[in-house]
Amino acid sequence: MHLERTIDFYMSSIAATHIKALRESMKASGADWYFITSDDHHSSEYVAEYFKVREYFDGFHGENAFLLVSQQEAKMWTDGRFFIQAERELAGSGVTLMRMGDEGVPTVQEYLKANMKEGESLFFDGKSINFSYGSKLEKIVKDKSGKLSFDKDLAGALWTDRPSLPSSKIFILTDDCTGENTVHKLARIRVKMAEAGAKAHFLSSLDDIMWITNLRADDIPCNPVALAYLLITEKEAYAFLQTSEATDEVKKYLQSVGIKTLDYMELDKFLQEFKAEGPVMLDEGGLNYFCVKTFKDKGEVVNRANPSKLMKAMKNETELKRLKEAYVLDSVCVTKLGYWLKKNIGKRTITEIDASDYIDGLRAKLPGFIELSFPTISGYGPNAAMMHYSATPENHAVCKPEGMLLVDSGGQYETGTTDVTRTFALGPVTDEMKLHFSKTAAGMLALADAKFLYGCTGRNVDILARLPLWELNIDYKCGTGHGVGYILNVHEGPQSIRWRFAEGMTEAVLEDGMIVSDEPGVYIEGSHGIRLENVILCKKGVQNGDGQFMEFEHLTYTPIDRDLLDKKYLSEKDVERINAYHKAVYDKTSQYFEGDELEWLKEVCAPI
Amino acid sequence: MHLERTIDFYMSSIAATHIKALRESMKASGADWYFITSDDHHSSEYVAEYFKVREYFDGFHGENAFLLVSQQEAKMWTDGRFFIQAERELAGSGVTLMRMGDEGVPTVQEYLKANMKEGESLFFDGKSINFSYGSKLEKIVKDKSGKLSFDKDLAGALWTDRPSLPSSKIFILTDDCTGENTVHKLARIRVKMAEAGAKAHFLSSLDDIMWITNLRADDIPCNPVALAYLLITEKEAYAFLQTSEATDEVKKYLQSVGIKTLDYMELDKFLQEFKAEGPVMLDEGGLNYFCVKTFKDKGEVVNRANPSKLMKAMKNETELKRLKEAYVLDSVCVTKLGYWLKKNIGKRTITEIDASDYIDGLRAKLPGFIELSFPTISGYGPNAAMMHYSATPENHAVCKPEGMLLVDSGGQYETGTTDVTRTFALGPVTDEMKLHFSKTAAGMLALADAKFLYGCTGRNVDILARLPLWELNIDYKCGTGHGVGYILNVHEGPQSIRWRFAEGMTEAVLEDGMIVSDEPGVYIEGSHGIRLENVILCKKGVQNGDGQFMEFEHLTYTPIDRDLLDKKYLSEKDVERINAYHKAVYDKTSQYFEGDELEWLKEVCAPI
Repeated sequence: MHLERTIDFYMSSIAATHIKALRESMKASGADWYFITSDDHHSSEYVAEYFKVREYFDGFHGENAFLLVSQQEAKMWTDGRFFIQAERELAGSGVTLMRMGDEGVPTVQEYLKANMKEGESLFFDGKSINFSYGSKLEKIVKDKSGKLSFDKDLAGALWTDRPSLPSSKIFILTDDCTGENTVHKLARIRVKMAEAGAKAHFLSSLDDIMWITNLRADDIPCNPVALAYLLITEKEAYAFLQTSEATDEVKKYLQSVGIKTLDYMELDKFLQEFKAEGPVMLDEGGLNYFCVKTFKDKGEVVNRANPSKLMKAMKNETELKRLKEAYVLDSVCVTKLGYWLKKNIGKRTITEIDASDYIDGLRAKLPGFIELSFPTISGYGPNAAMMHYSATPENHAVCKPEGMLLVDSGGQYETGTTDVTRTFALGPVTDEMKLHFSKTAAGMLALADAKFLYGCTGRNVDILARLPLWELNIDYKCGTGHGVGYILNVHEGPQSIRWRFAEGMTEAVLEDGMIVSDEPGVYIEGSHGIRLENVILCKKGVQNGDGQFMEFEHLTYTPIDRDLLDKKYLSEKDVERINAYHKAVYDKTSQYFEGDELEWLKEVCAPI
Repeated sequence: MHLERTIDFYMSSIAATHIKALRESMKASGADWYFITSDDHHSSEYVAEYFKVREYFDGFHGENAFLLVSQQEAKMWTDGRFFIQAERELAGSGVTLMRMGDEGVPTVQEYLKANMKEGESLFFDGKSINFSYGSKLEKIVKDKSGKLSFDKDLAGALWTDRPSLPSSKIFILTDDCTGENTVHKLARIRVKMAEAGAKAHFLSSLDDIMWITNLRADDIPCNPVALAYLLITEKEAYAFLQTSEATDEVKKYLQSVGIKTLDYMELDKFLQEFKAEGPVMLDEGGLNYFCVKTFKDKGEVVNRANPSKLMKAMKNETELKRLKEAYVLDSVCVTKLGYWLKKNIGKRTITEIDASDYIDGLRAKLPGFIELSFPTISGYGPNAAMMHYSATPENHAVCKPEGMLLVDSGGQYETGTTDVTRTFALGPVTDEMKLHFSKTAAGMLALADAKFLYGCTGRNVDILARLPLWELNIDYKCGTGHGVGYILNVHEGPQSIRWRFAEGMTEAVLEDGMIVSDEPGVYIEGSHGIRLENVILCKKGVQNGDGQFMEFEHLTYTPIDRDLLDKKYLSEKDVERINAYHKAVYDKTSQYFEGDELEWLKEVCAPI
């Protein structure tokens, strides 16, 4: 701990030096205020090192942070998950922490409104800020009759040892793998463009571009994507890829599906010269400020969600066939982790990291394994109650033969992307833990068992997962579920399972072929955390005069720890669902077990 | 039937004469097209005779109809509920039926767009058409470079024997009855005006105006309201009431709470002269076209839901205390109807109308009875499957000692407004009926038993009532519940229990003090109809770190017919809920029964 603080202090003084340099550059450029987000240019969930400009200047390693610098002040906003870490890492840097959400703490916009003087200037890198946020800052500057500059990365230019852009090998998915070739996908998108009255369509979201082009790469950890932009016109299409990645094979393939390859770094120049033959369709909410402004300056823009967003969410038959295979094999890894934990706990030292290493190792051996779909979360005891907990070599718990271990994990395979959470008893547990676990299991299975009419969104069905916990006056303060990509991001829209209403929100109807996680949980600070997560497939049920009924099907097949279930907390229907699920787990996965493991599987899948 | 047809034909030829007169007047006024809705000037759900202008011209007695007349054509649009009736009533009138919703049938707007010629004129009475509809017509006329006239009631002026405006005695509710005086209500509304930056607020919705002024009357059947407008400024308020209704007592009372009384017929003149000192807040969606246009022509308008809408939906302690009393006594009438039906069926003739007369008679004897809150719906056998069925002296069924009778009814009392539905077995029923009834009961009680976090709207909880039926691939094609007024309209917003999502819809959070109906059902065309409706109160439950939990409480306490319940279709939890509910029914209402009735109540409330 002592050493760590010394390192922090050293880092902070480096930060102070960097901010000093930034202030000099600001002075030279006439910038009164400089603003830096934590975003890349594509609004990605995970961000490559190259894009961590803010971190270079303030030394804070967490996420969701915003740095605002003037000659007098430097303030960094972040949310409650990171307050402790931020206080430590910012100490000595001269940067003040602004605790987002705390009473009396102004937002960036409120602060700027109150402190920016008439006629002052604000600079930011318009590519690292989304359009909606940028527009709000633009309005503040306008109201102050100030100057806005967004076309230069002033701060990034000062980063002397800046890492290069991430670069990896692009691979091309075959039609056997995707079930739909790019020519067909482009044709479907052009239909949507025509419906919107658009002559061109521009995208920067990497998963959309990968889905359309049937390419994959490894530029961003856990997301098998390449940095790219895509412009589609009525007759042409242009993919902007890094020259290091656009091999002859890739270029030839893209050409064969009607896409010209251009250099990723040439986007600005291309856009300046590009003349659209009519309105350009783009998703303002998903694009960076620079791109949207560029198109708006050039002509009419039609603001629409990328059509590919819904298309890629509705998995086709090929994808579903492969996904089902992937989920069964991936589930087997979780079951094997459970067996390993139960057999070894108390006999050898098992840390949170040992557990995640064990399951990561099992996944790595599966056919078609690419990488993890996100860093495995392994939380023992009270650590599991922290939703963003991450065990590190420096800071992790040793599991005892008591209480519970929560493991949330998933893989990227050539057959799809998985996501699954199980919570295991490692020995004696309290009655309260059994209550919480039983109700979590009841909710997870009740949602998966829902029958509903076509037209329902996640808001209609969320309560089925949550009700058993709400009846205990307990809520998990997050959504119940998210869409999952196909050899793509583990978090994907447009669908989600959530309950909260916000004026003007858009909701996606649950469509045939959508897959979504179903992950209720209980998080008791300082005590324990429980989450059970299956991924479920939405599909058509009966159609009759009352409409098209829809239902879910489990993709995940790994036992729900019976050591944590107590029938006194379960209804008849709950017990029926648990027994039916366990029977299916056994039927679908027993072929992958033998000997003691198989015997054990039989036991843990027996009716309760 | 033969006589009826003759009458229809006679009526139709009258309609033809009226339309001929309208065409002459149109010619004289330069109107190429004339459009008439079925609305009054206040967007009321029930419409007084005075406002039935369309009916005078086309002879059609149904609702939701629109008449469009040119020199060559006369077309009337209505929805599927009324196709058969409309065909019959329009025969010989020269008016063509346009079947709304049928494939290939254009809407009024589509029809007008396709058939109105450049430069032609459209006339309508801007007071009998809501702003949103009127605006759409305005746009069509504008696109045709045509002329729009909306400030004259051309058609109404031709109605020689037009009934006079409805007029009744206005009565003033005491503070003991309302729990909040008008001075306080006006103060709360003025706070909302200030928040919206408005200097004035104009209302035409009669229930809002009655709620604010604490007045009631009987201008519209089942709605205890007076025709009125209300204008509120920062310091003044003006109520526009008919001179026949604004007695000295009423005027004196209104003056005492800071409201000046003006003549209902003087509104136009007043508005022309009125000068707002700033923006005027009004609910464009709830006002007629004429009023909104008048305000928009004069100055800035702030479009907001009337603040009184939410305020009156959240019942205060006084209202709730009285409502609970009203619901218990009203429930007793339903129980007594059940007893009467069970004891008399097969022994004497019971028609649908006998049943409704019986319960209407019981209600009329209750203390503080004012009128029915809507015409009692009494449907036997297949009639109950028609959602808008209404038994008439000419057309009704005789109940047999078998099958089911559905009775949906309610009263207006000095203690509140009630709404309740029960479905009774009159003898042997099929197994399918028991299945449908048991699942309906399960859904109704499951919703009433919901625990949820504050912030949920009706869309979050609707599935709890619907799921048991969705699991049978059955849907009732309507909402699950609506708000209920307090000595006001039986249908009231802003809350509702519905599941369907529509882009841009607004939803009302379920607030402490809101009351809402909970009425799932099964409607099998040609066979049977089932509906069970309780009114439930939304109230605060536990508050903790996870938020404010909310729950419901039954207001309705009358048995659910055990002859229609079958335990094989009910879960343990369902049975538990039914038994707990029946115990409460007995505990709360047994004091109102004696002798055989009491014995019977004990039996029907015993655990199943």
